[in-house]
Amino acid sequence: MINFQISPDQYKHWKLSFDGAVARLTMDVQEDETLGDGYKLKLNSYDLGVDIELADAVQRIRFEHPEVRAVVITSLKPRIFCAGANIYMLGTSSHAFKVNFCKFTNETRCAIEDDSHNSGRRYIAALNGTASGGGYELAISCDEIYLVDDGNSAVSLPEVPLLGVLPGTGGLTRLVDKRKVRRDRADVFSTLAEGLKGKRAKEWGLIDDTFTTTKFQEAIDKRVAQITNTSRDEVTGIKLNRLDAKSTDDGRDYKYVSLIFHRDKRYVDLTMRGPEADLPTTAEQIQKLGDDYWPLRAYRELDDALLYLRVNEPEVGLVCIRTEGSIENVLATDKTLAANREHWLIREIVLHMARVLRRLDLTAKSFFSIIERDSCFAGNLFELVLASDRSYMLNNPDETVEVALSELNTGAFPMSNGLTRLQSRFLAEPKKAYEAFAHEGAFETEAAEEAGLITFAPDDLDWEDEIRVAIEERTSLSPDALTGMEASLRFAGPETMDTKIYGRLTAWQNWIFQRPNAVGPNGALTNYGKPTQAKFDYKRT
Amino acid sequence: MINFQISPDQYKHWKLSFDGAVARLTMDVQEDETLGDGYKLKLNSYDLGVDIELADAVQRIRFEHPEVRAVVITSLKPRIFCAGANIYMLGTSSHAFKVNFCKFTNETRCAIEDDSHNSGRRYIAALNGTASGGGYELAISCDEIYLVDDGNSAVSLPEVPLLGVLPGTGGLTRLVDKRKVRRDRADVFSTLAEGLKGKRAKEWGLIDDTFTTTKFQEAIDKRVAQITNTSRDEVTGIKLNRLDAKSTDDGRDYKYVSLIFHRDKRYVDLTMRGPEADLPTTAEQIQKLGDDYWPLRAYRELDDALLYLRVNEPEVGLVCIRTEGSIENVLATDKTLAANREHWLIREIVLHMARVLRRLDLTAKSFFSIIERDSCFAGNLFELVLASDRSYMLNNPDETVEVALSELNTGAFPMSNGLTRLQSRFLAEPKKAYEAFAHEGAFETEAAEEAGLITFAPDDLDWEDEIRVAIEERTSLSPDALTGMEASLRFAGPETMDTKIYGRLTAWQNWIFQRPNAVGPNGALTNYGKPTQAKFDYKRT
Repeated sequence: MINFQISPDQYKHWKLSFDGAVARLTMDVQEDETLGDGYKLKLNSYDLGVDIELADAVQRIRFEHPEVRAVVITSLKPRIFCAGANIYMLGTSSHAFKVNFCKFTNETRCAIEDDSHNSGRRYIAALNGTASGGGYELAISCDEIYLVDDGNSAVSLPEVPLLGVLPGTGGLTRLVDKRKVRRDRADVFSTLAEGLKGKRAKEWGLIDDTFTTTKFQEAIDKRVAQITNTSRDEVTGIKLNRLDAKSTDDGRDYKYVSLIFHRDKRYVDLTMRGPEADLPTTAEQIQKLGDDYWPLRAYRELDDALLYLRVNEPEVGLVCIRTEGSIENVLATDKTLAANREHWLIREIVLHMARVLRRLDLTAKSFFSIIERDSCFAGNLFELVLASDRSYMLNNPDETVEVALSELNTGAFPMSNGLTRLQSRFLAEPKKAYEAFAHEGAFETEAAEEAGLITFAPDDLDWEDEIRVAIEERTSLSPDALTGMEASLRFAGPETMDTKIYGRLTAWQNWIFQRPNAVGPNGALTNYGKPTQAKFDYKRT
Repeated sequence: MINFQISPDQYKHWKLSFDGAVARLTMDVQEDETLGDGYKLKLNSYDLGVDIELADAVQRIRFEHPEVRAVVITSLKPRIFCAGANIYMLGTSSHAFKVNFCKFTNETRCAIEDDSHNSGRRYIAALNGTASGGGYELAISCDEIYLVDDGNSAVSLPEVPLLGVLPGTGGLTRLVDKRKVRRDRADVFSTLAEGLKGKRAKEWGLIDDTFTTTKFQEAIDKRVAQITNTSRDEVTGIKLNRLDAKSTDDGRDYKYVSLIFHRDKRYVDLTMRGPEADLPTTAEQIQKLGDDYWPLRAYRELDDALLYLRVNEPEVGLVCIRTEGSIENVLATDKTLAANREHWLIREIVLHMARVLRRLDLTAKSFFSIIERDSCFAGNLFELVLASDRSYMLNNPDETVEVALSELNTGAFPMSNGLTRLQSRFLAEPKKAYEAFAHEGAFETEAAEEAGLITFAPDDLDWEDEIRVAIEERTSLSPDALTGMEASLRFAGPETMDTKIYGRLTAWQNWIFQRPNAVGPNGALTNYGKPTQAKFDYKRT
């Protein structure tokens, strides 16, 4: 079982230190501390375990050290910044693991950019040695890249020439879309195993500047000082404590999230419990309550549950999302969040909820929302309905079943394509999003159907059968076709750099990860580092 | 060898008829007239041969019958409009063929939309029977869809539930992006093998209207009359004659395009010869000259050569593009085209050139432009340099080597993403596109390099070695990794419905086309129509 919860005192591969407004995140991968067997993490190469620490560090900087305004990412190893994802780990992993590994590392890099974009922290990649493959892809997710000019250190994307696969952690997309490197130069760079050193790399826009070994540290310090020398209000962070999760054979329980597995039927019930009635209403009270505040706690648990399902329950293809609690309490919580969004902690909490919801959008499992009596799909929790592939809402004249919207549905939780989920739902009739928002109070089932907020509203006689049949049908379909279909239907409308990374780039990488030229007995990935050589079938597809 | 040239007198599967401003394109697939062996084209299902006829018909309507303002696509078969791509053909085809087949059919549907969008012809899908899979995907590429209400006929996308693959001819993307069907409804529709009939299909936005059997023809006629009842200037078309292409063991020769194969080295030299000096300069003279006019003839030949390379020369991974002729003549031709773009024929010619260039962008082979003495990479032909993955321009003080821009580079040939190739090249510095355009006269090598128009400018001493090594290196790399890399680097910037179809949807389909759940011994595609049943590995990836 892979565990995504960690804290700095347990880090094996990264050192995280703070000095006023500067955080320093230093990579020093321990080659024997691997998540799997059969490979060593040489030259600051990484596996999922290394990236789980990185994701945790970025998260903690945001919540525990809001005073930080510059994050310097660098290496403790001589002459090497980071050699990227470990090739032997990739070569010995299953297809599904490779795909999930790449998705998580992509999400970590997008989280860095989310912090930079929304919270204004500046990430500096201080490449005091060579950054190749995923090492350069980590650098390119930062705001600024500086490379030491020591006659040897280079940046490179050697995946295509050496391994017959793509730089799949956003590298190709960020080259031409973020750094806007000319496409012919990107073509040359991405096929050049040895990469480019300081001067040429700067000329081509691959790095921002290069400094000799003796001047490197001084130059980085100077740049960091420029970023941090403006004064700001004092802020103090909150502690992110370990989540208690209790796993049993058939389930996994957190405080607000429960999973119940129906493994023989290949689906899971995921229930989120809404907030209590007595939640704090001011930022000061919330800061005092810390990570036990429902919006933070419940969404951290949801995040962990999603990651758990991805890597530990591959055969579970369908997640039935349920909620339990009071719609009033959810709406009251949203009101507090909306009223305090200028406060750093509330801003971080809302941004975190948005990231978790995007993690759900990007999860390769089907999602059905099941809306019954005692559900509390309102406001932020109604995003779960909007994020689902379908929703079923009980229509029973004898019971009140309701859903509701809040101000947070109008922009607090953008999808990867930049749209709200309401906008995405009503692309054909944008007016319906406004009408739904303007609706007074909660929607009973028929009103919800009329407003276009749900997919189906079976009555109480058909309810159980209809849900059962829908689940059986869904879980009988080809899991691969569903993954491709959902990736196509979930992201209508505009595309952004993020959707290009998860849609276009990832889909091509997944294809290549299946191809004999990469993973067959004669494939380049299979034969990397062996005395044998790759032999390609040169037919172009 | 697959041949893409055809004319209506040779059609086996379509009937094309004209009645004033109305063209009628009627599908009547002959089940034994297949392009390959081992399958029958039952129920108006199609293979590449059927689609080559369709692509030809759309092209001829534009050039030979510019008077047409409405195109009605319908079926001669009772109760069936079209059953989509033939499953047995797909099941027995190689991966590479499936991918190229889907790409061509996608390009045909985009050509229909290009005609509608740029030339104002209205395409009416008159579904006088069931349209399933590719049949519905053909309908959804039309402007309007009408379905007969006979108690039986439906529209459907049964690929996911029945075959374990995607509707890969743009269906999923057009559902949510063109018709903007709500994503939960699109999810239900795309997993429902039997599809939806008239009333529900209309309610969900899958069709525009439905009529009973007795009223169907009348309703279509009425709609067509509405479209065609406005008066317009009389126009007469030109004839598209068969292109003469002479194939030998080592090459293929057209009037203006030559291919020389270096099969042992897995590359081809593609040379385009520029126009003569005495080309007509008025629309009337051009109309008189007809399809022998260089811009039409040369680009039709280039189109045919690209298609030929795709399906008949899979091992050729690199195309070295060369030109021969006079830069002045190319620029004079562009001047004529630019001055006459309001004339229907010139408009069609320029739109055709744009489509051919997009076909090049979408071809899964590497392109290097080789610029030497006697090259004429100017104006429209400079698009070949901009479309290439790289360009090499000889730098020799003793020889004049030049490239040049024309007005047509500023917008006549948009890429699939809506940008010009100059915009796409200079995303980081948009000003450079304007500066290059404002430059007086042609660019010699050093000026071209300085302006950012080319990748490399080797001098005459290094020239031959550098080109040789670049070719050897390129053709040694994994063809799959190159395809994925080029698909990622060629389309920086915005995405459109077209780029989503070719990037996101196609990449997922290619992945699924490799997956054991589709094409393995237990796969759904393999077992379709057999007594055996598909057995899935249910692990979600």
